[in-house]
Amino acid sequence: MQPIPVAILGATGMVGQRMVEALVHHPFFRVTALTGSERSVDKRYAEAATWRLAGDCPPQLADWIVRPTTPDALPAGTRIAFSALDSAVAGSIEEQFRAAGFAVVSNASNHRMDADVPLVIPEVNPDHLALVDGRRGFIVTNPNCGIIPVAMALAPLQARWPVEAATVATYQAVSGAGYPGESAWDMIGSVHPHAGNEEDKMAVEAQKILGAKDSAAPFAVSARCVRVPVADGHLVAVHVRLKGDPSPEDAKAAMREWTGKAPELPSSPRPLLVVTERRDRPSTRFDVDRGSGMTCTVGRVERCSVMGLKFFALAHNTVRGAAGAAIANGELLAVTGRLG
Amino acid sequence: MQPIPVAILGATGMVGQRMVEALVHHPFFRVTALTGSERSVDKRYAEAATWRLAGDCPPQLADWIVRPTTPDALPAGTRIAFSALDSAVAGSIEEQFRAAGFAVVSNASNHRMDADVPLVIPEVNPDHLALVDGRRGFIVTNPNCGIIPVAMALAPLQARWPVEAATVATYQAVSGAGYPGESAWDMIGSVHPHAGNEEDKMAVEAQKILGAKDSAAPFAVSARCVRVPVADGHLVAVHVRLKGDPSPEDAKAAMREWTGKAPELPSSPRPLLVVTERRDRPSTRFDVDRGSGMTCTVGRVERCSVMGLKFFALAHNTVRGAAGAAIANGELLAVTGRLG
Amino acid sequence: MQPIPVAILGATGMVGQRMVEALVHHPFFRVTALTGSERSVDKRYAEAATWRLAGDCPPQLADWIVRPTTPDALPAGTRIAFSALDSAVAGSIEEQFRAAGFAVVSNASNHRMDADVPLVIPEVNPDHLALVDGRRGFIVTNPNCGIIPVAMALAPLQARWPVEAATVATYQAVSGAGYPGESAWDMIGSVHPHAGNEEDKMAVEAQKILGAKDSAAPFAVSARCVRVPVADGHLVAVHVRLKGDPSPEDAKAAMREWTGKAPELPSSPRPLLVVTERRDRPSTRFDVDRGSGMTCTVGRVERCSVMGLKFFALAHNTVRGAAGAAIANGELLAVTGRLG
Amino acid sequence: MQPIPVAILGATGMVGQRMVEALVHHPFFRVTALTGSERSVDKRYAEAATWRLAGDCPPQLADWIVRPTTPDALPAGTRIAFSALDSAVAGSIEEQFRAAGFAVVSNASNHRMDADVPLVIPEVNPDHLALVDGRRGFIVTNPNCGIIPVAMALAPLQARWPVEAATVATYQAVSGAGYPGESAWDMIGSVHPHAGNEEDKMAVEAQKILGAKDSAAPFAVSARCVRVPVADGHLVAVHVRLKGDPSPEDAKAAMREWTGKAPELPSSPRPLLVVTERRDRPSTRFDVDRGSGMTCTVGRVERCSVMGLKFFALAHNTVRGAAGAAIANGELLAVTGRLG
Repeated sequence: MQPIPVAILGATGMVGQRMVEALVHHPFFRVTALTGSERSVDKRYAEAATWRLAGDCPPQLADWIVRPTTPDALPAGTRIAFSALDSAVAGSIEEQFRAAGFAVVSNASNHRMDADVPLVIPEVNPDHLALVDGRRGFIVTNPNCGIIPVAMALAPLQARWPVEAATVATYQAVSGAGYPGESAWDMIGSVHPHAGNEEDKMAVEAQKILGAKDSAAPFAVSARCVRVPVADGHLVAVHVRLKGDPSPEDAKAAMREWTGKAPELPSSPRPLLVVTERRDRPSTRFDVDRGSGMTCTVGRVERCSVMGLKFFALAHNTVRGAAGAAIANGELLAVTGRLG
Repeated sequence: MQPIPVAILGATGMVGQRMVEALVHHPFFRVTALTGSERSVDKRYAEAATWRLAGDCPPQLADWIVRPTTPDALPAGTRIAFSALDSAVAGSIEEQFRAAGFAVVSNASNHRMDADVPLVIPEVNPDHLALVDGRRGFIVTNPNCGIIPVAMALAPLQARWPVEAATVATYQAVSGAGYPGESAWDMIGSVHPHAGNEEDKMAVEAQKILGAKDSAAPFAVSARCVRVPVADGHLVAVHVRLKGDPSPEDAKAAMREWTGKAPELPSSPRPLLVVTERRDRPSTRFDVDRGSGMTCTVGRVERCSVMGLKFFALAHNTVRGAAGAAIANGELLAVTGRLG
Repeated sequence: MQPIPVAILGATGMVGQRMVEALVHHPFFRVTALTGSERSVDKRYAEAATWRLAGDCPPQLADWIVRPTTPDALPAGTRIAFSALDSAVAGSIEEQFRAAGFAVVSNASNHRMDADVPLVIPEVNPDHLALVDGRRGFIVTNPNCGIIPVAMALAPLQARWPVEAATVATYQAVSGAGYPGESAWDMIGSVHPHAGNEEDKMAVEAQKILGAKDSAAPFAVSARCVRVPVADGHLVAVHVRLKGDPSPEDAKAAMREWTGKAPELPSSPRPLLVVTERRDRPSTRFDVDRGSGMTCTVGRVERCSVMGLKFFALAHNTVRGAAGAAIANGELLAVTGRLG
Repeated sequence: MQPIPVAILGATGMVGQRMVEALVHHPFFRVTALTGSERSVDKRYAEAATWRLAGDCPPQLADWIVRPTTPDALPAGTRIAFSALDSAVAGSIEEQFRAAGFAVVSNASNHRMDADVPLVIPEVNPDHLALVDGRRGFIVTNPNCGIIPVAMALAPLQARWPVEAATVATYQAVSGAGYPGESAWDMIGSVHPHAGNEEDKMAVEAQKILGAKDSAAPFAVSARCVRVPVADGHLVAVHVRLKGDPSPEDAKAAMREWTGKAPELPSSPRPLLVVTERRDRPSTRFDVDRGSGMTCTVGRVERCSVMGLKFFALAHNTVRGAAGAAIANGELLAVTGRLG
């Protein structure tokens, strides 16, 4: 396969840096451009983007000049625009790139609920990509970082015992807020409710992902989202009512057997779900990096006296929940021949 | 009122130190003895108990000699034995003190579910104390630190809209595990499910507290308990189904108006519940010390698409949830004439 | 004494809120105005300043309207302008207030090294206030939060064994950066060198405070400043060479006996320095609030094989090191008759 | 090369687990036995040793039966005994293994200062191994985790500008205390002086490592050791006086050029030292894993007004400072033909 030329929109932020980290050596993709806001344009990437991840800015891209975030600023032939843009600006910019014929693979929330935009976790609902069939320019999105462990853990259950309702409480890492994001003053030895609209996003996104490509699943999800002093990794506590009321043992077996619906993808790990029997796990620091951050860890799958079943699930919020999610979606587009 | 002579059983641990801190200057009580395990007996208190709270060991008690935890080791006339004993030993020791005629006011879990032992939050179910009427020796207990913010926030609702079911997720401080308790290695930038049986305790204790003195309330509570890197303060996220399905506004009004059922007590603050309208509160570090740690802070009282109502509540786990809980129970015994 | 009318300049930030907290009930001062930047002017204080400290905005001031930070916006008769202004703007604003005849008592760094501006810790160098004698408008400053525990611990030593040189390493709380200040992403389970010019400030400010009012002390101080994941409280490790090379026992005795040079002030605690013998103290969370945050805790006073003496010292950086420092300076001005 | 059979003594603790992690796939060594204390003997390793590192216990060793820590319990032919024993028991046990003819490669402190025991960082003082030449049974040790970044950063300087004296302040991770080690209660949002004798160890170990194999270097090191709420990674702030007083630029050049004195070893990374120019680095979480935890990161190399030069250095305390240190010493023994 010829390397597919891709650009990273909004490459200077935390999700953008995670994309840079993952794409600098990728079996399918070759980065052609890094874009930024006015403040960053025409600067060296390493200067525009103070590196916020471990180690240093990849030296291969450090000297690249940041380009404006417009379709005509990208080198000819660039096929995918991976969008790590902030939702404050992503809406119209992504539409411009779509209009210009790009496959926009976005982590931003703006277009997730559009009827013609698939909201995809490759292993969960790859068939939703059919929404873009036959188009050259389109937008494909991945879900909010908080719903990803919920959706991944529910996917193998939903296949046999449809979800009827769920209450969810999250333990969300600070990297979910980007950089600088949460103030250290607020997070030292403290937790607090997430002030944004995460709880609403979790409800509607779960319904779209776990539904059919043109009709949302009908269950209710009521979430409480809380920020905790953790760097990376969103843990969720899920209480769920499933049609058929499976036992914890049956639920665990379904999770362990689950291989997902996607074809083989570079970013999709084996196993997808690790189900641990340790009573004190999943624990963020110790489980977040499984499968290079793309495996979801589930634990304490137990009877719930109110809803029937309860469990914990954990996923890396800026890898499986953001940059890696988008890249896996890009891989799925490539493997399914939708970039032709 | 003559000062009432009281002893602190297990005075060297974290809850014992909180009791020392609260009782060294108390309008009702006068400490007569501090007891400890074999390892501590006959040592100076300040030496037996490395001080783990802010500042230093109260100088008034620093030179006291730690006594064995037996009834005959206490000075004659001691009326209340406040028990901060570990549950590994509290069961039979508290029975001995009861048999010896003491009012045992305990924070330990061992006897909480006994039919003849009241499980009391003074402002919530003071009438349960009737279970000990007419006895000289008895045991009175306070609930697990995790259920206290749940029970306090539900109490004013339960009075008008009986609880039908609730799912709960906790964000529990490390001090709940005593000292040394949780390993720092496990808690730096990490959260993990509580490996003990907290979840079960929360269910049955909530039913007993919010029920009548001789019959548990019939609702189900299903909890997920998680330890977070916070020093003091348990935050809970509650999704609850209430008979009559009150609006969030009605629920908040009931909480704000609530003055509890207890007579005036030195440790009972005004207000009992603070209901905040800030979307990022309650936040552990900023709300935990309200009312000297005895006020419970509630926030984000909102519609729940699954259960009807949801909210957050926060209480100080070693004050309102342990040492202060026991002392308030002792005050209630005194004020209601049960120490005669 | 008639209450002295005072204004708080820059009342919406973290230090400003600490000033509000301390001045709302003060035996000497009566707040007449709260000022803010353009963004805040004409808003209610509680709305302009999201409350970042424990509990809620003091209700007495919540509804006050924020005024512009100009001399003519203050009510007539206001005598002191307590400045919690950011150093980005404090320089010229404070000069305007001085020119308008105010006693500007500032926490900002801008004028600290001016020859006609005293840099004062009341108990250490109250005589430096003589620099403003005879003037109606003047500026008085307090030192950088990092140097305060160093200067307070060295003051009683310097009196008998002049400092020759010191190396210092700090463990600085995030509140030193204001709000939002440090990013939580950078501080979760991590420490890093302070990127600003704290190290330089510590050197020159120590020389000015411990010197005579018109000539800096001649010793060298070389500091390393590090931010640690702590909310409040700067710990410092000091290695110091003293003329006369006192023993640790002599040094501790001098520290314990020290009562400072100030007259009695409401904000000046007794003792000024607590010297602990515990090998694991001072520890930030456990010692920071001594003396309502105005006492400095010293520990591990030991022989140093390189410099002669070494010790740790801890002070509350936004109380003793900022808001409380300024207020104590204001009190000293009042008590010494300089506000006449 | 034939794989060299090695045992891990004290394999269940935190350093033991790090050794397991590193040795399960090693180009030189083949694990033959895992030993533990009485409590662990005859149990499956995965059961005796609750896994405390990321992910799970390596499945290849999970079912191994833990053996007693005695020479005759090891399979015949085992050549190296890597010791992760606690210093409470390591002293005499390591002597037994030496007497039985083993190459004991130890992380324990007990024998570090023995005249016939080399204290080695392979890249710094490999020549010290000559102390064991001609013997079959011997002990080789690595230094305390706190001194390792100091010694590595000073090594290239010492070669040209001999160290005259240094003051050091540490910012030490909780993993240095093993498991459970530090109490979470003490470390949430707090720092405190290390209560043990780390400061003394740092002084004498630095002199031995940077000296000749039979004579300690004559400089004084005075350290302050502080525990900070960080999982892995010891940061040190060093103020040093060097003969010849090199400029920061010269010092940095020497550090960057340094390739060490060891032959090529699997665990020895390139580069050994990374010198960063970022003012806010090294930062524990972002720099600790360089070179798989074996690279030391240096920053802020600057003039010191008291000692001449100052800098920060960071190393992974349980990899470069413990398990990896011992394994690299084992590799050096192998490559230099001392296991024949």
